[in-house]
Amino acid sequence: MRNIKLTIEYDGTNYRGWQVQGEAPTIQKMLGEAIAQVVQHPVSIIGSGRTDSGVHALGQVANFTTDSAIPAQQLVRAINAHLPADIAVVAAQDVPQGFHARYSAKQKTYRYRILDREVRCPALRNYAYHLPARLDLDEMNRAARYLIGEHDFRAFQSKASEAEDRSSVRTITAADVARSGQLIELHLSADGFLYNMVRAIVGTLIQVGIGKIGADEFKRIIESKDRSLAGPTAPARGLCLMEVTY
Amino acid sequence: MRNIKLTIEYDGTNYRGWQVQGEAPTIQKMLGEAIAQVVQHPVSIIGSGRTDSGVHALGQVANFTTDSAIPAQQLVRAINAHLPADIAVVAAQDVPQGFHARYSAKQKTYRYRILDREVRCPALRNYAYHLPARLDLDEMNRAARYLIGEHDFRAFQSKASEAEDRSSVRTITAADVARSGQLIELHLSADGFLYNMVRAIVGTLIQVGIGKIGADEFKRIIESKDRSLAGPTAPARGLCLMEVTY
Repeated sequence: MRNIKLTIEYDGTNYRGWQVQGEAPTIQKMLGEAIAQVVQHPVSIIGSGRTDSGVHALGQVANFTTDSAIPAQQLVRAINAHLPADIAVVAAQDVPQGFHARYSAKQKTYRYRILDREVRCPALRNYAYHLPARLDLDEMNRAARYLIGEHDFRAFQSKASEAEDRSSVRTITAADVARSGQLIELHLSADGFLYNMVRAIVGTLIQVGIGKIGADEFKRIIESKDRSLAGPTAPARGLCLMEVTY
Repeated sequence: MRNIKLTIEYDGTNYRGWQVQGEAPTIQKMLGEAIAQVVQHPVSIIGSGRTDSGVHALGQVANFTTDSAIPAQQLVRAINAHLPADIAVVAAQDVPQGFHARYSAKQKTYRYRILDREVRCPALRNYAYHLPARLDLDEMNRAARYLIGEHDFRAFQSKASEAEDRSSVRTITAADVARSGQLIELHLSADGFLYNMVRAIVGTLIQVGIGKIGADEFKRIIESKDRSLAGPTAPARGLCLMEVTY
């Protein structure tokens, strides 16, 4: 039995997120159907983690097992031929049996894009959060530095997931905010993220950026472990899963 | 009577181009309906030129006359409130009566994007032409230099437009091909373009890039004034009207 690791890009706009949910259009469902057509048997696809409805990926990782003899490089072309234009497999490789896209993941990096100009941008309408406000990037970075390290991030965890996760302790290894052309880009890397954690952190950092919360107060919010003190969850469309490392 | 100049961005994916065509969804139609609702009277919108179905704009210019007293800055917000998310007015200003978006235009700049990596990119599927071939950018630039200056560009003019235009002589002021991240970007500036001229030039430059045509042969194609010698018209989705100067 072969174990195949896939790297996947998608535009999440038209999907109800990663995870199969009955007949709803999801990335995992589309991918599963495409692969099944290629390898000629049903497959169980393990993703590195779920992405929500409207969230994009440039580096989602998944794996599946098969006894198909099709070489990995050919699998890329063959699977893509069965996928819609807004999902693409960009790489495939044989990996050891022990590889598990979720449990073997060592680090994930997300990017969040904010368009801060006055007028919305049609070409970015599904790929950035339009927020026509001046954001103080220095203060946001000062706050973001408090995220780095091992912390209990319960303050940024959606209620829905609290029962599922035994621990809400994660280690954030990088957190920065920078201008990139007309966009503001936030990058966050961690050994894992709680449900909606990135979007809750971004929503709270935006409160810092507009001056509603100081960087020191942001630190106290982390320490409080109280979701009600943090900011709102930022919209899905600005979020993109960039990389999963193993 | 006021004459208002608008700068407009749009994602052309879901439209049948700029020009009103009965009830078909076009940019000019959507804009006309939005403005009419704001100024409370029907308006006649003059664009700097048509863009085809699927072509985008980051700097389309149009003008219309009105006796509305709404200040230009407020017009931007008010018109955008009546436009769909894939069209936006980014600037409005009062201009002299003599200003005509089409006849007063001095120069237009178009950008064409090619994605040359092996696998397609979901996020760019509507904004770049996916051509998984190695393109020789040096040779393309050597050919593109022959475009610069005043020439009869009939070799790059679609048959459909020949009757309309008295002259097919235009002056190209800039033509270059460069890599920008994972994309190849072609920029072309001229005092005006014939119908489908940019896409025919790009289609022919691609033939140069893949080695089917040499730069010297490209020069002879320009001189031949024979459309049948030039390459195919490149797909609309890679094209974007960047700027119109007056």
